[in-house]
Amino acid sequence: LLPLLSLMCCPAAAYVDEPNLSKSFLSHYEHDHEDALGSSEDTRLHVFTLDYDYVQIPYEVTLWILLASLAKIGFHLYHQLPRLMPESCILIAIGALVGAIIFASDHKSPPVMNTSIYFLYLLPPIILEEGYFMPTRPFFENFGSILWWSVLGALLNSFGIGLSLYAVCQIEAFGLTDLNLLQNLLFGSMISAVDPVAALVVFEEASVNEQLYMMIFGESLLNDGITVVLYNIFIAFTQMHRYEEIESIDVFAGFARFFVVGLGGVLFGIVFGFVSAFMTRFTRNVSAIEPLLVFMFSYLSYLSAETLYISGILAMTACAVTMKKYVEENVSQNSYTTIKYFMKMLSSVSETLIFVFMGVSTVGKNHEWNWAFICFTLLFCLVWRTLSVFALFYISNKFRTYPFTFKDQLIISYSGLRGASSFSLAFLLPGNLFPRKNLFITATLVVIYFTVFIQGITIGPLVRYLDVKKTNKKESINEEIHVRLMDHLKAGIEDICGHWSHYQLRDKFKKFDNKYLKKILIREHEPKSSIVSLYKKMEIKLAIEMAESGMKISKPSTDSLQSGGNRRVHRLSPAEVESMRDVLAHNLYQVRQR
Amino acid sequence: LLPLLSLMCCPAAAYVDEPNLSKSFLSHYEHDHEDALGSSEDTRLHVFTLDYDYVQIPYEVTLWILLASLAKIGFHLYHQLPRLMPESCILIAIGALVGAIIFASDHKSPPVMNTSIYFLYLLPPIILEEGYFMPTRPFFENFGSILWWSVLGALLNSFGIGLSLYAVCQIEAFGLTDLNLLQNLLFGSMISAVDPVAALVVFEEASVNEQLYMMIFGESLLNDGITVVLYNIFIAFTQMHRYEEIESIDVFAGFARFFVVGLGGVLFGIVFGFVSAFMTRFTRNVSAIEPLLVFMFSYLSYLSAETLYISGILAMTACAVTMKKYVEENVSQNSYTTIKYFMKMLSSVSETLIFVFMGVSTVGKNHEWNWAFICFTLLFCLVWRTLSVFALFYISNKFRTYPFTFKDQLIISYSGLRGASSFSLAFLLPGNLFPRKNLFITATLVVIYFTVFIQGITIGPLVRYLDVKKTNKKESINEEIHVRLMDHLKAGIEDICGHWSHYQLRDKFKKFDNKYLKKILIREHEPKSSIVSLYKKMEIKLAIEMAESGMKISKPSTDSLQSGGNRRVHRLSPAEVESMRDVLAHNLYQVRQR
Repeated sequence: LLPLLSLMCCPAAAYVDEPNLSKSFLSHYEHDHEDALGSSEDTRLHVFTLDYDYVQIPYEVTLWILLASLAKIGFHLYHQLPRLMPESCILIAIGALVGAIIFASDHKSPPVMNTSIYFLYLLPPIILEEGYFMPTRPFFENFGSILWWSVLGALLNSFGIGLSLYAVCQIEAFGLTDLNLLQNLLFGSMISAVDPVAALVVFEEASVNEQLYMMIFGESLLNDGITVVLYNIFIAFTQMHRYEEIESIDVFAGFARFFVVGLGGVLFGIVFGFVSAFMTRFTRNVSAIEPLLVFMFSYLSYLSAETLYISGILAMTACAVTMKKYVEENVSQNSYTTIKYFMKMLSSVSETLIFVFMGVSTVGKNHEWNWAFICFTLLFCLVWRTLSVFALFYISNKFRTYPFTFKDQLIISYSGLRGASSFSLAFLLPGNLFPRKNLFITATLVVIYFTVFIQGITIGPLVRYLDVKKTNKKESINEEIHVRLMDHLKAGIEDICGHWSHYQLRDKFKKFDNKYLKKILIREHEPKSSIVSLYKKMEIKLAIEMAESGMKISKPSTDSLQSGGNRRVHRLSPAEVESMRDVLAHNLYQVRQR
Repeated sequence: LLPLLSLMCCPAAAYVDEPNLSKSFLSHYEHDHEDALGSSEDTRLHVFTLDYDYVQIPYEVTLWILLASLAKIGFHLYHQLPRLMPESCILIAIGALVGAIIFASDHKSPPVMNTSIYFLYLLPPIILEEGYFMPTRPFFENFGSILWWSVLGALLNSFGIGLSLYAVCQIEAFGLTDLNLLQNLLFGSMISAVDPVAALVVFEEASVNEQLYMMIFGESLLNDGITVVLYNIFIAFTQMHRYEEIESIDVFAGFARFFVVGLGGVLFGIVFGFVSAFMTRFTRNVSAIEPLLVFMFSYLSYLSAETLYISGILAMTACAVTMKKYVEENVSQNSYTTIKYFMKMLSSVSETLIFVFMGVSTVGKNHEWNWAFICFTLLFCLVWRTLSVFALFYISNKFRTYPFTFKDQLIISYSGLRGASSFSLAFLLPGNLFPRKNLFITATLVVIYFTVFIQGITIGPLVRYLDVKKTNKKESINEEIHVRLMDHLKAGIEDICGHWSHYQLRDKFKKFDNKYLKKILIREHEPKSSIVSLYKKMEIKLAIEMAESGMKISKPSTDSLQSGGNRRVHRLSPAEVESMRDVLAHNLYQVRQR
C-alpha cells in the first residue's frame, strides 16, 4: 500500500479550500482555459501541457475510492487479519495514517469528511442496500419490540447521558462550568446515535440469529432518525435561548416533529416505491435502464425527504422494501443480478470510504482534550446503554412469545457501536453557538474509537464465548408452502376467537395485494405467486451453480445436470407448482370464508 | 410524459447561475443552515421546514437522469416509433421541448450542457462501453484501413471545409469578411468531428456487417482525438496571431503534438489496463468490489490522459481492450454480469442525457443566423465528406484483400453524423477571440440537426435499400478452434515465404502473452485457454437460458435439461476441451518450430 499512499499525497498537496476548488473547477473553461492558452507570459505552443484543475474533483474522488478498494483488498489478502479484528478498525487506521501524511505535508487535513458528503452521497447507498436486503418477515414480526426499544432507548440514552454530563459539569474543578444544560443535552443526543454501519458490519461477520440481528438493524434504522431530530431541536432551542425564552409551544412543536419526521418519511418512501415499481412494468424493451430506475427513485425519495427535513433514512428504507417485491418480478434476470451486486458494491465502497475518511479527519488541529469530560462521556455511554437495554427489554419481554435471553440483552448492550453519524453531527455544530465545539469533537472521536476498536474487536469472541444462537436460514419451496399454510391457519383461528392481531392484518394486506396492487404494478403474463418466483429464483441459482461447478470438477457437467434432474424437487414444473398453490390457497380461503 | 415535464419545471425555475449554486451548496452547512435556524426573523421552532439548496445538485442530477430514462421508456412503448426513426431524434426533440419550457419560465436556459460535464462525466461511460465490447479481432485486422481513413479523412475534412468557407467569406455580400483564415480553419476542425455516439447508435440498430461497422467505429475513435488536437492548435494560433507572428517551430510543435496525443494516449491506457488486470488477481475474497476496479481504473486512465492534454478517448479504449481479456478470467460470474450490464446501463444513460441536453441547450439567446454561412457549411460538410471517402478508399482498396464496395463507401460517406462533441467544442470557444462565436454555434447546431434528423432517419432505409451485407455473428467452439488453426497456418506459411505481416506479429504476441503476461495477470488455477473460457461462458449462458425458458413454457424444465445434455456439444467436458486444445497447439507449434 505504501506506493499508493505516496500517490495520494501528490493530489493532497495540491488541495485548496473546497469552495475555491469548486469555483475554479466550474469556471475552468470560462477563465482558466483562456489563461492557460492566452494571457500567460509564454504564448508559444508546447508539445506537452498539463491542466490539473480541470480534472481535480473527479480525479481525487476516483483516487479516494481506489485507495479504499485497495485497503479492502489488502485487508482480505492476509487470512489471519479478518479473524482477528473487524475491517472497520483497519480502515480507520489506514485513514488516520493517510491523514497524518497529508497533514504532515500540508499542515491541514483535507476536507473529505464534509457533512453533506456523508449525508448526501455516502450514507444513501448503505441505507438502500440494508433496506433492499432486509428480511421483511422477521422485521415485521418483531416490529413492536423494535419500535419500543429503538425509540425509548434513543430517548433514554440521549437524556440520560446529557443530564449526567450536566451534573458532572457543575463540579468546578473540571473547568466545564460554561457548558449549559442545553449544550449537554445536545451532546447527549449526538453521542447516543448508534451507527447503522459499524454495528451491522460486526453482526454480519458474526452471523448472529435473526431475532437479535433484527433488533440491532431496527435500532440503527429508527435510532438515527430520532437522534437527528433531537439534535436539530436542541440546536434550535440553543439558538432561541440566546434571543428569547423557550415557550411551551416550542416543546410541543418539537414533539410533533417526531411524528412528522417518522411517519412522513415512511409515507414518502412507500409512494416512491410504488411509482418505481409501476415504472418497471414498461421497461421490457429497454431492460438496460431497469437498475437505474431502482437506484434513482430510491435516491430521489431520500433527497426529497431530506429537503423537507423528514427522515431520509426511513424514506429510503420504506421505498426499498416497497419496490423490491414488485420490481424483482418485473425486471430481467440480468437486471436483477446487476441491481443486487451493484447495490452491494456501492454500499461496500461507501462503508469503506466512511471509515477511511473518519480516520483521515481524526488528524487535525480542531481538538480540545479534557480528561474529566471525555472519561465521563465514555462511562455514561456504557452505563446508560446497559441500563436502558435491561430496563426496556425487561418490560417488552413480558409481551413476547420468545423473550430475549440475558445473553441476547448482553450482546445488544455491548453492540452500541458509535460511528460516522455521531462524528458528522459533531462536525456540523455551529461554532458561534458552541464555543467548546472542539471538545465535543474530541469526545465523540474517543467514544467512536473506543467502541469500534475495543468493543468491535471483542464482540466476535464474545458472541462465540456466550454461544449465542447462530443463523441457519435456507429457503425452500417446502418451507414457503408450510409458512403460508400456518399463516392462513393462525388467521383462521384468530377469526374464530374474535381476536385481532398482525396475522389478520397480514392476511388482509395479502388479499388487497393480490386483488389490486399486483395487477397494477406487475407486468401481465408474469408468474403471480411468490412460490413460483421463489422456484424460478432457485432454478436459476442452481443452473448457474451447476454451470460453474461443471468447470471446476473434472467430471462432465452433463452428469450433474442429469443427476440434478432426478432429484424430487426438480420434477415440479411451474405449472404443477401453480396448480398446487391454487388448490391450497383456494381450499384455505373457502374454509375461512365459511 | 407531460406530468414529468411540469415536474422538471419546478426545479428549473429555481435555477441560478451554476457557480452561485455550487457555492451555496458547499457552504450550506457553514452559513445557510445557521441562517435557516437562527438569524432569520422568525426563530420559532416549526413542525415543517424546507431546505432545497442543500440537496439541489444531486436532486437535479437525479431528476435529469429520470427524465432521460422516462423518455427512453416512452420511446420504446410505442412499437411503431423505433422503426420510424432513431432514438436520438426523439430525445433531442424532448430536450428542446423541456428547454423551451424552462426558457419560457425563466428566460434563460439551464447550464446543463457544460463542456466539462460532457467531457468529464458523459463521454467516458460511452467510450468505456465501446472499448470494452469492441470486437478486437476485426478491429486489428482492419487497423491499417482504419488509421488511413480516420486520420487523413479528418485532416482532409477539416482543411477542406475550413478553406472552402474562407473562400466564401471573401464575398462581401454575405457580411462575413471579418472571419479570418484561422477562424475558418478552426470551425472546419470543429465541424468535421464525427460523433462517436450518434453514428454508432444508428449502425447498431441497422446491424451492418462487421467490416463496415469497424470503419465507422475506428473513425469515431481516432477522429475525435485528431479534431480536438487541431482545435486546440488553431485556438493557440489564433491567440498568438494577436500578439506576435506564428513561427515555423510552432507548426512543427503542432505536428509533434499529434503523435504525443495519439501514442501517449494508447500507452497510458495499456499501462492502466495491466495494473487493473493485476489488481483483480487478489479480489477473490472481496468480489463485491471487482466491478469497481474496472470502472475506476479505466476512468483514471481517461482523467490522467486528459490532465496531460493527451487523448483520453484513446487511453480509455486501450485500457478497456487491455483489461478485458484478463479481468474476465479473474472475476466471479456475478461480477462479470454486473460489469457488463452496468456498463451498458451507464453508457445508455449517458447517451440519452447527451441527446436530451443537446435539445435543451438549443433553446437560448446565443444564436446568430446567417443564411450564406450556414447553407455553405452544410453543403461543404456533405461534399467534403463524400469526396474524402471516395478518394481515400480508392487508394486503400488497392491494398486490401476484401475491398470496400461502392455501396459500403456510400454508406460510410452518408454516416457522417455530427453530434455532441462538435457542439461542446463550439460552446467552448473563447468569446474574446471569436466575436462571431454565436454564428459558429448556430451553424454547428444546424449541421447536427440536419445530420441527426435527415441522415439519421434515412440511413436505416438506405442500408435496407442498398441491401448491405448484414452481420450474422455467433460464437462457437468450432469456430474458435478453426480460426486459431488458420492463424497458425498463415503464420507458418509466411514464415516459409520470408514475408513479415500482422499474422506473425499476432503469433509472437500470443507466445509472449502465454509465457509472461497471463502468468502475471491471471489468478492461479484458472482456466488458461480462451477456448475453455468460451466454453464456460456458453455453458453459463445456456444454463441461464434453460432456467428462464423453463419458466415460460409449460413443459417441465427438467426435460430441456436432459435433452440439452444429449446434444453433442455438451458432451465435451472442460478436461476434454483442454486436452484437445493442448494437442492442437502443441502440434502446430512443433510444425512451426521445425
